[in-house]
Amino acid sequence: MVHVNEMQLNIIEGGSVASPKGFQATGIHCGIRRKKKDLGILFTETPAVTAAVYTTNTFQAAPLEVTKESLATSSVQRALIVNSGNANAFTGEQGLKDAYKMREVTAGYFNFLPAEVMVASTGVIGEKMPMDNILDGIKQLSYLANKNDGLAFSEAILTTDTVSKSLAVELIIDGKRITIGGTAKGSGMIHPNMATMLAFITTDAKVEDAALQRLLRQVTDQTFNMITVDGDTSTNDMVIVMANGLAENESLDEKHPEWLAFYQGFQYMAKELAKMIAKDGEGATKLITVTADGAGSPEMARTIAKEIIGSNLVKTAVFGADGNWGRIVMAIGNSGYQVDGKVLDISIGNVNVINQGEQTIYEEEMVTESLQGEEVKIHVDLHLGKESATAWGCDLTYDYVKINAAYRT
Amino acid sequence: MVHVNEMQLNIIEGGSVASPKGFQATGIHCGIRRKKKDLGILFTETPAVTAAVYTTNTFQAAPLEVTKESLATSSVQRALIVNSGNANAFTGEQGLKDAYKMREVTAGYFNFLPAEVMVASTGVIGEKMPMDNILDGIKQLSYLANKNDGLAFSEAILTTDTVSKSLAVELIIDGKRITIGGTAKGSGMIHPNMATMLAFITTDAKVEDAALQRLLRQVTDQTFNMITVDGDTSTNDMVIVMANGLAENESLDEKHPEWLAFYQGFQYMAKELAKMIAKDGEGATKLITVTADGAGSPEMARTIAKEIIGSNLVKTAVFGADGNWGRIVMAIGNSGYQVDGKVLDISIGNVNVINQGEQTIYEEEMVTESLQGEEVKIHVDLHLGKESATAWGCDLTYDYVKINAAYRT
Repeated sequence: MVHVNEMQLNIIEGGSVASPKGFQATGIHCGIRRKKKDLGILFTETPAVTAAVYTTNTFQAAPLEVTKESLATSSVQRALIVNSGNANAFTGEQGLKDAYKMREVTAGYFNFLPAEVMVASTGVIGEKMPMDNILDGIKQLSYLANKNDGLAFSEAILTTDTVSKSLAVELIIDGKRITIGGTAKGSGMIHPNMATMLAFITTDAKVEDAALQRLLRQVTDQTFNMITVDGDTSTNDMVIVMANGLAENESLDEKHPEWLAFYQGFQYMAKELAKMIAKDGEGATKLITVTADGAGSPEMARTIAKEIIGSNLVKTAVFGADGNWGRIVMAIGNSGYQVDGKVLDISIGNVNVINQGEQTIYEEEMVTESLQGEEVKIHVDLHLGKESATAWGCDLTYDYVKINAAYRT
Repeated sequence: MVHVNEMQLNIIEGGSVASPKGFQATGIHCGIRRKKKDLGILFTETPAVTAAVYTTNTFQAAPLEVTKESLATSSVQRALIVNSGNANAFTGEQGLKDAYKMREVTAGYFNFLPAEVMVASTGVIGEKMPMDNILDGIKQLSYLANKNDGLAFSEAILTTDTVSKSLAVELIIDGKRITIGGTAKGSGMIHPNMATMLAFITTDAKVEDAALQRLLRQVTDQTFNMITVDGDTSTNDMVIVMANGLAENESLDEKHPEWLAFYQGFQYMAKELAKMIAKDGEGATKLITVTADGAGSPEMARTIAKEIIGSNLVKTAVFGADGNWGRIVMAIGNSGYQVDGKVLDISIGNVNVINQGEQTIYEEEMVTESLQGEEVKIHVDLHLGKESATAWGCDLTYDYVKINAAYRT
């Protein structure tokens, strides 16, 4: 049980995207990756209102085009087919044909319309899809349709992630038990504005179509778009939310008296998934949380928090537990915003190292200690206004270099 | 001897900032750094027309303020005092006093006006300057004033650089021998728009004040602002050029018939120094040159070249000699510019891996080989226009992490 403001959220032990009523999911190994699971299906027994946001990278991969088309064609969705190991990005006409084929074959086996099926891929860019394996795999998935295994689905979408990311929470709305489930994958190419990131959220709440899209957009900007692993965005990122309404609450939109509770529950889910992605960044040993307070505008707060979390020099200093606050100053100055150094406060962990622009007297060991844990907090107060933003990231380590110097081999 | 277009440039063996007539320089160890040289003086026997460009970082270090004041007060400059080991950045009022003191004491010992002396610092941010050592050091430098040693000066400005960077070239203008000397330091915090970078260029050419400033601005945008090591910009960067006129040519500006020769000579110097900085980036094993051709605008060409050179994923792939062109595609898409994947060409070394948007048939070994040398070339042709830009950078290695995880310790 966690408390988000005044709201109580019940965390479901072993929860997943398959926790909300009517959702089923599973994952298998079909042969795209060497040994690991690489193909997953998520579907709902009854049609779900669905919203999505996509990568800002100019080159959007083929599955994004197909998913966009499904959402443009049908107001409700039934299923999502996802593979890892191959991004089906920059694969030309053939890649697009392959993504459509995945959609069509999934629709066929599961008895949905093609426009009710979404497609997602993640992995290496520029390689042709091994369609024989994938089509065989979809067939296998259809036999397993009743073997509900949300955690297997979460495993099937991973690439260089070291842990699978899965969560579900419950809350009460209109006296009904509402469940929200979610899963994500991240690891490299993670940067604000959608990275090599897939996140799928399911709920049995009944939600108005347009309200769901607005909610997803707002919450994504506060969560998934505030994480960075390496400053690179990918061609394949998307966040999808499906709401099938089986909880039988009064349909939710901003006018519903309990909208805020739903909003916060959804936001909690998105934030936890985003933090899991940041913490499991390639080679990461630490989750870094940067909060920028006292900014003159929301954009200023966001930009400065992201500059700090995105700086290779800050990231390596955290890895080395070196309380080098000069690099935090440098990163703030790198944001392009005019900041007054004379009123600036900086804290690393619980140690206030800069107060009103002056270095305080502190034991270096205290700072080192607060940088040695698995979770490191950096806080800056700009004292220029009332806006605030939080960003999440990870340290830059030898293993990041190791993983990426030979990703394909 | 090198040829730049039709112009002949004579490279001076062992050349330095002290090679042009009337310039003297030297460097010593005064105790800011543990053992290495950390204080340098550069001066000219006769007053020099001087131009400068500075970091875009919001927090500009104290010495920049002082140097700007000197340049605003006096139309000619005589000397530059530089220390390494401490950036005198984010050091408040005391830092500013210290930078003024460095200027005043240097002016006193060398018999210049304070407003004819410039100050530069590089090193750790946020630590107080060890002024006793520095003031003693300036005194020592004044005794050594006649011991001309441009290479010692180049050494004294280094931080984590592994080699000192020094060069001088000669060319003929108006039948007179003109010499241009230069030195630079870089290493970390190197990113387009001035990084932790200092570059000083001297020449005995006679140049008009305003023309010199325009030249420096233009050439900096093509050279020093096109290199990146880690995407972080610093508080201390500047590029200074001093022209003392002792070569006795007709005063140079854009209307002079041989302006282009001088422009190209100056550009050659700036480009070579920029490449030396990129190649000696922290932990770097390779110089990477990225050329973006066929862009629709100069800004598009520059942005795309810089996105590619700045991508951690491209940099680690080059380190690992992995011909992962998907990451180059990703970086182009990350630029925010709309690019047509169907006409895109990409070459790694001499291997054209993508032709008109399609992967060509090539031996992976050929690509690996071209990534194994000390100089790696990446070329993209966007086929959208006629604009072109080149950016320089380096690979991201274990040693980058090692150096930056414990810079201060």
